[in-house]
Amino acid sequence: MSWAQTASAKKARQLDSVPPEWLNSESNLPPPGQLNVFHFPQESGTLSALDLEITESHVAALLSNLASCKWSSVQVTTSFYKRAIVAQQLTNCLTEIFVDRALARAKELDAHLEKTGKVVGALHGLPISLKDQISIKGIESSMGYVSWIGQHAEKNAVLVDILESLGAVPFVKTNIPQTLMWPETFNHVFGRTTNPHNRSLTSGGSSGGEGALVALKGSPLGVGSDIGGSVRIPAGFCGVYGFRPSYNRVPYAGCVNSLEGQDSILSVLGPLSNTLDGIKTFFKAVMSAQPWLKDPMVIRKRWSDEEYNLMDHGNGVKKLCFAIMWDDAVIMPHPPVRRGLEITKNALLAAGHQVIDWTPYKQAEIVLTTNAIWNAASSEDYQTAAAPSGEPVIPSMGVLPDDAKLLFRPTGPGLSAFELWQVQKRKRSLRQEYLKLWEDTASLTGTGRPVDAIISPMAPYTAPPHGLNKTASYTMTWNLLDYPAVVIPVSKVDQSLDMKQPREKFYTPEDQENYELYDPATYENAPISVQVIGRTMEDEAVIAMSEVVDDALKVAQSL
Amino acid sequence: MSWAQTASAKKARQLDSVPPEWLNSESNLPPPGQLNVFHFPQESGTLSALDLEITESHVAALLSNLASCKWSSVQVTTSFYKRAIVAQQLTNCLTEIFVDRALARAKELDAHLEKTGKVVGALHGLPISLKDQISIKGIESSMGYVSWIGQHAEKNAVLVDILESLGAVPFVKTNIPQTLMWPETFNHVFGRTTNPHNRSLTSGGSSGGEGALVALKGSPLGVGSDIGGSVRIPAGFCGVYGFRPSYNRVPYAGCVNSLEGQDSILSVLGPLSNTLDGIKTFFKAVMSAQPWLKDPMVIRKRWSDEEYNLMDHGNGVKKLCFAIMWDDAVIMPHPPVRRGLEITKNALLAAGHQVIDWTPYKQAEIVLTTNAIWNAASSEDYQTAAAPSGEPVIPSMGVLPDDAKLLFRPTGPGLSAFELWQVQKRKRSLRQEYLKLWEDTASLTGTGRPVDAIISPMAPYTAPPHGLNKTASYTMTWNLLDYPAVVIPVSKVDQSLDMKQPREKFYTPEDQENYELYDPATYENAPISVQVIGRTMEDEAVIAMSEVVDDALKVAQSL
Repeated sequence: MSWAQTASAKKARQLDSVPPEWLNSESNLPPPGQLNVFHFPQESGTLSALDLEITESHVAALLSNLASCKWSSVQVTTSFYKRAIVAQQLTNCLTEIFVDRALARAKELDAHLEKTGKVVGALHGLPISLKDQISIKGIESSMGYVSWIGQHAEKNAVLVDILESLGAVPFVKTNIPQTLMWPETFNHVFGRTTNPHNRSLTSGGSSGGEGALVALKGSPLGVGSDIGGSVRIPAGFCGVYGFRPSYNRVPYAGCVNSLEGQDSILSVLGPLSNTLDGIKTFFKAVMSAQPWLKDPMVIRKRWSDEEYNLMDHGNGVKKLCFAIMWDDAVIMPHPPVRRGLEITKNALLAAGHQVIDWTPYKQAEIVLTTNAIWNAASSEDYQTAAAPSGEPVIPSMGVLPDDAKLLFRPTGPGLSAFELWQVQKRKRSLRQEYLKLWEDTASLTGTGRPVDAIISPMAPYTAPPHGLNKTASYTMTWNLLDYPAVVIPVSKVDQSLDMKQPREKFYTPEDQENYELYDPATYENAPISVQVIGRTMEDEAVIAMSEVVDDALKVAQSL
Repeated sequence: MSWAQTASAKKARQLDSVPPEWLNSESNLPPPGQLNVFHFPQESGTLSALDLEITESHVAALLSNLASCKWSSVQVTTSFYKRAIVAQQLTNCLTEIFVDRALARAKELDAHLEKTGKVVGALHGLPISLKDQISIKGIESSMGYVSWIGQHAEKNAVLVDILESLGAVPFVKTNIPQTLMWPETFNHVFGRTTNPHNRSLTSGGSSGGEGALVALKGSPLGVGSDIGGSVRIPAGFCGVYGFRPSYNRVPYAGCVNSLEGQDSILSVLGPLSNTLDGIKTFFKAVMSAQPWLKDPMVIRKRWSDEEYNLMDHGNGVKKLCFAIMWDDAVIMPHPPVRRGLEITKNALLAAGHQVIDWTPYKQAEIVLTTNAIWNAASSEDYQTAAAPSGEPVIPSMGVLPDDAKLLFRPTGPGLSAFELWQVQKRKRSLRQEYLKLWEDTASLTGTGRPVDAIISPMAPYTAPPHGLNKTASYTMTWNLLDYPAVVIPVSKVDQSLDMKQPREKFYTPEDQENYELYDPATYENAPISVQVIGRTMEDEAVIAMSEVVDDALKVAQSL
């Protein structure tokens, strides 16, 4: 069987795993030419009024109604499943679908609650979607490689064990790009995930399946991974919240991955949700399970209420000082991105906070250093994974076969260990310099403290057309520095507000190329997001400061 | 000038930096053939009764008497300086000596206390010795490389800034092996450091200067570094306490080092002292300075009184369960090492604690994996450092030029980055397996918890003759696993107690070779130590459990 046949057979098995009554017929679905399908779930004939009520509820309400037995876990899981299948038909966001397993687990949880009157844990009964690489015992973890089809996980990833111990119900796995090392979502097994706000645009990646699924409310809480923006990019492009925690707080052990053994710039798992409450609930619950007892990489550090209450930021009793990085002095963001920052600035000022400018620092070098570390051996890594099936390593996420030449794909033969160490030494210097830069802002803020958090674009554009997400520089920076970051949706592209502005001077050729790509009509309806960035291991404080930003935005929007 | 001449000139400058009145004449010093010089400082004509009283005092008493102005910092620093110079004459343990700088700082501290009535910080007035690699502004950091002679540090290492901000007085730097990657102490610039208990034996390494200096009470508190045992080996061989903290708790930024950019098995800084109180005082004081604001690698985790009070170990109210690893199933320890473990076991049982056996797990593979990661590019690293001067990379720490063939020296051409990643992936699996192994002991302890701490040999022998410290396997294991570990002195080799026992079966050829090396007379008077090992990031708890072990030993010894 050729690799293409193996892939087709797998895709056919995927369709077979869906109960037929949950599927809309082709004629019921929006035509392929209908780009914005964001509101289709409400029109889908497969969802009842209760299904819609449940799936429109946020994590806190779901958990409350599950704990009070207003809704059973079987009911909630079924409702989200049905909506996830609609999302799948609209955007192709899923990989593994395992209805029997999930509903059996939900039934157990319902029985436990009925019998004991107690919830199993902080996530009792909540369905959770997982990026394909997060292994579930007995389920395939192909990660989009044809070579890996049929690899049924021998055991759960540590995170899955923890989520289940907390009462969660893993119910679908979600799509990724081949290799994971792309900021879009396309592979030979499951195909491409599109953006529900505008299907001609990318969902982002590598957790693009999560982005599209959570945006369509096919999952109340999803888990992605982020080594250079892979949680934040799909969250931002799809208009949901996404959190990249610091290295080694959320357990990663037992997942499949790319670049395994690369110990320098680490991938981390992080949540996506439609509210910040979903983000916080996930993080706090996982920390409560003492993950360091199950994954040796996880730092022994309990959730800190003191840090969440901003003990290192004036205890939150006075104004915070945010610094906005308007651009990175390499690629100027498109007009809607700038507008998102302005909205955020004005909302924070109106809420009584201080906002100053953040001067970008060696952004190009940070990005080059990050790429050099990944690409020290990424070619060999990808080729090793793709070789057994004979499938090609995909040269581009573009829609045309010859639409190649993206920034991520390594071309060289890799580095020696000694060369790699020299790059990693440079990385450490950059982190040292950036720390000093941040500490030195204490003289600029008027609070007596350094800047509390940086606010930056998530990307120099909103979701672009497929194949054109050519840089992850606005997210990668914080991975090298290991700064936790939350993506917050702010608005959407509006042709009347986000007109193209004349520019004559450009930072770089890439800046000019990016400028020329902008055209308000192409990006119509794409979500606009910002990134709230804190300091290494300040995860709790970054969540709290993101709530400050989000609350300010909500107040401003309600005026 | 040849490299040998450059080295000689540096060594001559070192001698010039010592006030002549602090030097014993050759005729006053013990003859080279006198092996045990441990008690010579008390006989040295250069130390007054007050100097002896001060230098025989432990850290807590010193700090108390400094804070109460009973002793000035100038007095205390001078007394330790004089004793350090005696130690230097006996064991060649120092590199940089900077009397004027240190005494000027001590004078400032005295003036501050007199003027304000307040100490500068938790280490007010205390002289502290530093391993050569820990940079002090304006002082050379040659690290034993002739090539690096004349490299005066442009700024303090972060740790030095912190120690000075806490009131400490750095006053000498201490000897190391060329490359740092040896468990003995010898280089072309400063020569060899010997063991004050028996100068025919090694002081260990790489922090061998600290081991000899602290043992002779030429410093109340020293700082070494440990990537495979380099704090613990000299501490154990010289009979003092030594602590290897978890990765990234004590700030390392600004030190010179070997294998820079190697991000996988990290070197850490840690203290050596004549009491556990010195260890705790150092660690708690450094944490109080929020080192994560000065070194981006440091984990944002405050000193935890809860963890020190053994919150994860029954709050210390009931018995603890220790597990003794009697040997590693690769090399059987010599009889005195076994006796040290037996003394410890009996002391703990007498104190009401539980002691079970620890089964060694994949020790050989752990050591091979560690070596493979370091040696991925160590040859290139050493050659690059040695090349400018033309000095050879030292092939062995032995006393004869052809006494080569130790385990540490890499022979191959190094690895590719991809090969390195595969080894690092194996490392992560080993850590995962070991975590499970430890968790699974919960069924064996009777406490309801897994084993609280492991007790193991520090090495398969007490300090051996120069050139024969061929393995660091008993310490390296815990570096790969990132387990914090404290070395505690227990006893000394006694020919009447530590007789050679007949053995016929051996684990490995190295085991047989090690067995054949033992001869009680050779090792006479060498300190016997044990290692107390906890779990990643349990630094506070490991200090507390080491106090439990140390207290039990002291009670047992007083009976």
